[in-house]
Amino acid sequence: MIKGISQAGLGHISPEELVRSAAAYGFGAVDMSTDTLVAKYGLEGTQQLLKDHHVVLGSIGLPVEWSQTESLFREQLTRVATTAYQASLLGCESCCTYILPATDELPAAYMAQSIVRLRQIASILDAYGIRLGLEFVGPHHLRTAWKYPFIHSVEDTLTMIDAINQTNVGLLVDAYHCYTTGFTADDIRQLRADQIVHVHINDAKDIPMDQVLDNDRLYPAEGVIDLRSFVQALQDIGYTGVVAQEILTPEPPTDSITSLWERSERGFNHVFQALSTI
Amino acid sequence: MIKGISQAGLGHISPEELVRSAAAYGFGAVDMSTDTLVAKYGLEGTQQLLKDHHVVLGSIGLPVEWSQTESLFREQLTRVATTAYQASLLGCESCCTYILPATDELPAAYMAQSIVRLRQIASILDAYGIRLGLEFVGPHHLRTAWKYPFIHSVEDTLTMIDAINQTNVGLLVDAYHCYTTGFTADDIRQLRADQIVHVHINDAKDIPMDQVLDNDRLYPAEGVIDLRSFVQALQDIGYTGVVAQEILTPEPPTDSITSLWERSERGFNHVFQALSTI
Amino acid sequence: MIKGISQAGLGHISPEELVRSAAAYGFGAVDMSTDTLVAKYGLEGTQQLLKDHHVVLGSIGLPVEWSQTESLFREQLTRVATTAYQASLLGCESCCTYILPATDELPAAYMAQSIVRLRQIASILDAYGIRLGLEFVGPHHLRTAWKYPFIHSVEDTLTMIDAINQTNVGLLVDAYHCYTTGFTADDIRQLRADQIVHVHINDAKDIPMDQVLDNDRLYPAEGVIDLRSFVQALQDIGYTGVVAQEILTPEPPTDSITSLWERSERGFNHVFQALSTI
Amino acid sequence: MIKGISQAGLGHISPEELVRSAAAYGFGAVDMSTDTLVAKYGLEGTQQLLKDHHVVLGSIGLPVEWSQTESLFREQLTRVATTAYQASLLGCESCCTYILPATDELPAAYMAQSIVRLRQIASILDAYGIRLGLEFVGPHHLRTAWKYPFIHSVEDTLTMIDAINQTNVGLLVDAYHCYTTGFTADDIRQLRADQIVHVHINDAKDIPMDQVLDNDRLYPAEGVIDLRSFVQALQDIGYTGVVAQEILTPEPPTDSITSLWERSERGFNHVFQALSTI
Repeated sequence: MIKGISQAGLGHISPEELVRSAAAYGFGAVDMSTDTLVAKYGLEGTQQLLKDHHVVLGSIGLPVEWSQTESLFREQLTRVATTAYQASLLGCESCCTYILPATDELPAAYMAQSIVRLRQIASILDAYGIRLGLEFVGPHHLRTAWKYPFIHSVEDTLTMIDAINQTNVGLLVDAYHCYTTGFTADDIRQLRADQIVHVHINDAKDIPMDQVLDNDRLYPAEGVIDLRSFVQALQDIGYTGVVAQEILTPEPPTDSITSLWERSERGFNHVFQALSTI
Repeated sequence: MIKGISQAGLGHISPEELVRSAAAYGFGAVDMSTDTLVAKYGLEGTQQLLKDHHVVLGSIGLPVEWSQTESLFREQLTRVATTAYQASLLGCESCCTYILPATDELPAAYMAQSIVRLRQIASILDAYGIRLGLEFVGPHHLRTAWKYPFIHSVEDTLTMIDAINQTNVGLLVDAYHCYTTGFTADDIRQLRADQIVHVHINDAKDIPMDQVLDNDRLYPAEGVIDLRSFVQALQDIGYTGVVAQEILTPEPPTDSITSLWERSERGFNHVFQALSTI
Repeated sequence: MIKGISQAGLGHISPEELVRSAAAYGFGAVDMSTDTLVAKYGLEGTQQLLKDHHVVLGSIGLPVEWSQTESLFREQLTRVATTAYQASLLGCESCCTYILPATDELPAAYMAQSIVRLRQIASILDAYGIRLGLEFVGPHHLRTAWKYPFIHSVEDTLTMIDAINQTNVGLLVDAYHCYTTGFTADDIRQLRADQIVHVHINDAKDIPMDQVLDNDRLYPAEGVIDLRSFVQALQDIGYTGVVAQEILTPEPPTDSITSLWERSERGFNHVFQALSTI
Repeated sequence: MIKGISQAGLGHISPEELVRSAAAYGFGAVDMSTDTLVAKYGLEGTQQLLKDHHVVLGSIGLPVEWSQTESLFREQLTRVATTAYQASLLGCESCCTYILPATDELPAAYMAQSIVRLRQIASILDAYGIRLGLEFVGPHHLRTAWKYPFIHSVEDTLTMIDAINQTNVGLLVDAYHCYTTGFTADDIRQLRADQIVHVHINDAKDIPMDQVLDNDRLYPAEGVIDLRSFVQALQDIGYTGVVAQEILTPEPPTDSITSLWERSERGFNHVFQALSTI
């Protein structure tokens, strides 16, 4: 597995700084949008920057709003191929989006519509050798943040993936969402590595599990999630992809960038310490 | 368009009697399962029976329960290819199933699961040149007969069809369900003929539209549905398939078969009278 | 059916002039790329131009080279969504590409690769409500213009469409290619209207059919193709789309634009004269 | 990885005897059709037999002829769901078929037709949690055994799998076919484990590689194929499925069943000896 880092948890760090420093703190992959770097350095310049700093691209975010109006979807879908093309030339192989666990739309029709749109997106990504990771979202408060329940379990997300019926779609498995949906390390062992496109780690506060907030996470090893078992299970099923940090907080952290990097590095070292190989 | 007849509305009529009498009452197609006739006469015998009595097969029902457990679905899916093969050899080109407007299952996951299963079914039917018609179901009482709303509009059914993503899936348009979902003749004109796999006609009691019951229908031209506009709209979009009678009633009708046939014939004559061609 | 006109056969006519004059010569649709007009007038300006001149967009060409290298395909695929988005806002519902009847690539693998790429293209177009028409190409000289035979018959093109398995893919039926593949008016009658995305008409020289050249066509009604039967068959199956002129010649015609328009108008009048409605 | 055994190489051994003896010779999986055992013992009896003899089902063959006429395909497709259902209840997760490297059909249309049919087959298997493995076939003599080349390389087979576009289709990798197509252990390392549904091993005579015959194979470790590197590469990419023996010979072997078992066991021991784990 490759340790990955994202901007979420490193304050106002720029994409460029993320790339420059990642390896020094033990990270081999960066999750980020490629636009600003390519705008600044060009494609070859960005390829060189990644190479010189010994990092690969982990996952990019999906640049299209697929859960709103048809009009907005059609307008933004035009970005997907260009983003995917650029990312593919930079060696990126995955792109993720999240599925909110509730919706104001009547859920049956909203599911059918989402399947149609995610398939169109996945088909474009597939042309560029990029896989689409769907992130199930666990925190309980979000299940009632909109009128109707949608889906939040791994099982239901896998059914949705089946319905999309594109060979390049899988899960984004985030430890926080496993924790809040009761998806244990043993459950991870029931998955196949190829069902997992990307992984996020982060930690949870020591409060009742059904009260943890989606945007109030801790750095790995600072909370109550058994992350060692989490990564061991991924290792056991043969997952060899990226495990990236993503720390959502109500406010950006105020510590120095250096201390945030060190905190991240410490967290990852602690979590991965017990594994035989990374 | 071809006038079609089904057992629903003709009491305890046998499939064989349905075939023997249909043409005499103006019907060119019969909707029914082919099993009993093939069991009795064999395949060639059934082909000959249809030919001798100047009728073609309209639509067969789908012989698999796709909305219950995985276990039941897997067990019954084995019937689809055999049924489809037999029906294709008998010249049948369509097979229909209905979508209930509510469900006890959480609707988002239930939609995803239904899409997976209906695609598998449609794929088998496609191998035999058979199209799958999905019937949206309009009566309002059914929308609350189970815990959660599912879908009932043409628009949502078309989105579901998109999500299934098989070229041989379309609508079963039933006049009763158009009436109870406010889908007018002008709305029919916005459809393409190829979006319609099969059509049912029947009529509704003169009570508030939101109170008509799914299983308490009238014969064509005996109720308040504007069936002439309905068939005219189908004609205008170039629909050339079967328009079959399907009268669901709480109890089987007690009149003689002959009078039921005559009532059906009368109804169809009245409805189709104003069309330039049938 | 709607009479359509394209630049092929009208010399050096600009897209703008095509739009401005079409209706005056009896044409209701224009086949062309929308880029130059949108670049000049903007989207709303182009919508207005079409509206003011009483024409709709017929079909646009496909702006991606799908039969060459993977590298070129990936680069050009980025254009499809933008082109489709623009075309959809201009009311266009179809986009066509041709299938050459021979190839220098080993044909089995080339077929598989083409199916993958055309599906990706069709999926993007589908997001914008645009159908993809595949044009089978009949002239015999092209069957040996490259090393190995590919496909040229309607039957094989329909199998390819089945293999692509996207609901928005159908045929571009060109009278010249029907003529050179022996696909008669009676064969057209065996098709369903929804299998046809777009139609081209033109005419053939009075030389043996297997010697007509792909780029040496005549204006409708000036050659030996029975175009009246061709359009009558389209009418009979309920095809209501565009029938557009496409005259490929070795050199651009030297006559005045006006006489080329008049020749086109005459040809169409002659061909459509016997139909009861257009 | 699980060592698997098939009837091919064990003379006239019955499916029952294959199950009873496999574990004694170090095999954990049997590749065979399940019909005869289920006919004799019933479903539960067969489940018990497998359990009592410590073997699982490896792969079943595909019971439908998909490369001949449409009529034959439609007739035989009816077997797939029943076979798949039975196999799934017996814990089988894979079903394989081979792709001949040449054909008497024009290859482009034959490829399109094969893709349509294999997709319909794969869709049915998917309903039962069974994956379809496509076996590329390498021996050079078969490339000219029919009129036109079809496909034989891993690369082209992967393109065909892409075109089929079903999530449950992958490769059957047979060491003999890797050997005869020059697909090395390093090439295996470029595959992902999830691209491989099933594996066969056997060995080749010490004659020029382009002269080895498809039906004249040797037992593992008795020929010139570097099978140790082959299985090491599978191990390195994380393949954990079955590696089954399949020895095709011009005549069934005449040795005693016991000596054939011992020869098979010896071959596998030699091949797997250098691996750290199985």
